[in-house]
Amino acid sequence: MRHTHILLAHGSGGSMMHDLIRELFLPAFDNPLLQQSNDQAVFDPQTKRLAFTTDSYVVQPLFFPGGCIGDLAVHGTINDLAVGGAVPIGLSAGFIIEEGLEVEILQRIVDAMKLAADNAGVPIVTGDTKVVERGACDKLFINTSGIGVIADGVNIDGANARDGDVVLLSGCIGEHGVAVMSERKGIRFSTPVVTDSKALHRLVQRMLDVCSDIHVMRDPTRGGVASTLNEIASQSGVGIEIDEASLPITPEVQGACDLLGLDPLYLANEGALIAIVPAVHSDALLAAMRETPEGVNARMIGTVLSDTPGLVRMRTGIGGTRIVNMLSGEILPRIC
Amino acid sequence: MRHTHILLAHGSGGSMMHDLIRELFLPAFDNPLLQQSNDQAVFDPQTKRLAFTTDSYVVQPLFFPGGCIGDLAVHGTINDLAVGGAVPIGLSAGFIIEEGLEVEILQRIVDAMKLAADNAGVPIVTGDTKVVERGACDKLFINTSGIGVIADGVNIDGANARDGDVVLLSGCIGEHGVAVMSERKGIRFSTPVVTDSKALHRLVQRMLDVCSDIHVMRDPTRGGVASTLNEIASQSGVGIEIDEASLPITPEVQGACDLLGLDPLYLANEGALIAIVPAVHSDALLAAMRETPEGVNARMIGTVLSDTPGLVRMRTGIGGTRIVNMLSGEILPRIC
Repeated sequence: MRHTHILLAHGSGGSMMHDLIRELFLPAFDNPLLQQSNDQAVFDPQTKRLAFTTDSYVVQPLFFPGGCIGDLAVHGTINDLAVGGAVPIGLSAGFIIEEGLEVEILQRIVDAMKLAADNAGVPIVTGDTKVVERGACDKLFINTSGIGVIADGVNIDGANARDGDVVLLSGCIGEHGVAVMSERKGIRFSTPVVTDSKALHRLVQRMLDVCSDIHVMRDPTRGGVASTLNEIASQSGVGIEIDEASLPITPEVQGACDLLGLDPLYLANEGALIAIVPAVHSDALLAAMRETPEGVNARMIGTVLSDTPGLVRMRTGIGGTRIVNMLSGEILPRIC
Repeated sequence: MRHTHILLAHGSGGSMMHDLIRELFLPAFDNPLLQQSNDQAVFDPQTKRLAFTTDSYVVQPLFFPGGCIGDLAVHGTINDLAVGGAVPIGLSAGFIIEEGLEVEILQRIVDAMKLAADNAGVPIVTGDTKVVERGACDKLFINTSGIGVIADGVNIDGANARDGDVVLLSGCIGEHGVAVMSERKGIRFSTPVVTDSKALHRLVQRMLDVCSDIHVMRDPTRGGVASTLNEIASQSGVGIEIDEASLPITPEVQGACDLLGLDPLYLANEGALIAIVPAVHSDALLAAMRETPEGVNARMIGTVLSDTPGLVRMRTGIGGTRIVNMLSGEILPRIC
């Protein structure tokens, strides 16, 4: 690009915006649908049931151990489709950029998006760029929306948890929250904690191959495992009991949480999912999950109960039981 | 809502965000797809070809004569689908909100979105909310993405303009740009200029009923009619000649442009479209357009030529011809 900094005119709708698209976005995301260069992408899906989702990413700082806003924006929206049982078929990308942002930074972020989208096999098919004046936004926000197709017979819904179901968790928790927090606070750990940000759609399809009757799936992002379980308990009108000893938490994350006064149950995850499944299928599902790179640390963490509808409780390490509430305030703004 | 101001916790993923969704967004947008309360909306479209588009709205100020960021965000994304020949079937809404925004303002904007979506018959089916700290964004940004279905036989593309085609414009130009600019500068006109922001999908379907072989359609938003015609000329590899005397510009807009030193050809429109159509169908299309509320001021403004590929020129009122370039800088940042 001829410019080293983003100018207001890069969001103008005129020639400089076209330069930015042609010189930066198109080379990065190049694919036939995007090359149509119309204001919309046209799909020809092979099945009839579609999933559609949106997420805006405002993470601060833009780069953190193991990732950046770009790959996060791809993974996060893919995962919102995946946990609905959908195979993602396309993403949109909407950029809101602060005047003065270094083009090199935008390039690195766009490259990370491209790499994440390629690795996931999900094209970015349409986009939009706005530039606002210095001070009107903090460097860069990205919205990604996504479309996916859902196979017949798959019916995953937050209201489907049933008495006796088993709660599975696909990976270690708290890593994304600690990674972003440590970067923000300038804390260095001897063993760095990196984000778990990754795409989960292949893991989900592997799980659906084993059991198409998965009742609920959610990715515990903002608000963490605690808030996601509370959402499910409330939507399904059931109780959920989890076992503290079963929660997969690395010593590094636990140490960081102790240091920073954080509870890993409330920290954001960007590469883990919670699945609520019929007990009869849980062993086969766990075995299948552990065979995938995304699910190697999968665990059974709890069960669904018909008593105490709407309530989540945890059997603690010392033998007691405590209520696990939904996150009530804000501990880590702009975590994703 | 219990709160009068948006707090950081309203974007937390925890209970206060759920309060905001339940008390403000859900009542506004209420529809069965949104009520699924999953992270994605599931469609069951009746045809196979889909359009998918995204747009972020950063207009400043949030309210301007005739509209606000909310209805603009609905109309703009519907129009991006419409000009692809698609019938919109659902929108997403992603909010990035500055801590401290008055809830009353957000409510008014959400109500305007709801009204616009209802009037258009297009539901908002999935959403996302982020809140950033004071100073990290300017009050409110909204991303809307949209999906639409395209009937068989419709093939509208910026590359389809052909020698001899006719250029139609559906309505008066420059109104949105002047309305926002006058609000921003605190200028009052004796006859106020209001935005032309409106949904164009019904007009487009009426046009397709008359002629399914429309070659190109675009809505001349940022960058105006001049930039849109240049995009088409470049994509199709044709020349375009327009006639200055045929451009529908109200005396109020012309007066405001003279006062503010603006060229209406470069001002944003949010309720007008340009169609490039076979000459043989142009009269029937114009007649049909003028029968709709959205197209009552429709005009033929020019023709497509095989010479001077990529170039747009204008026959001026005084009998000369001048080149109409694409907008090169930024005249009105944050116009949409």
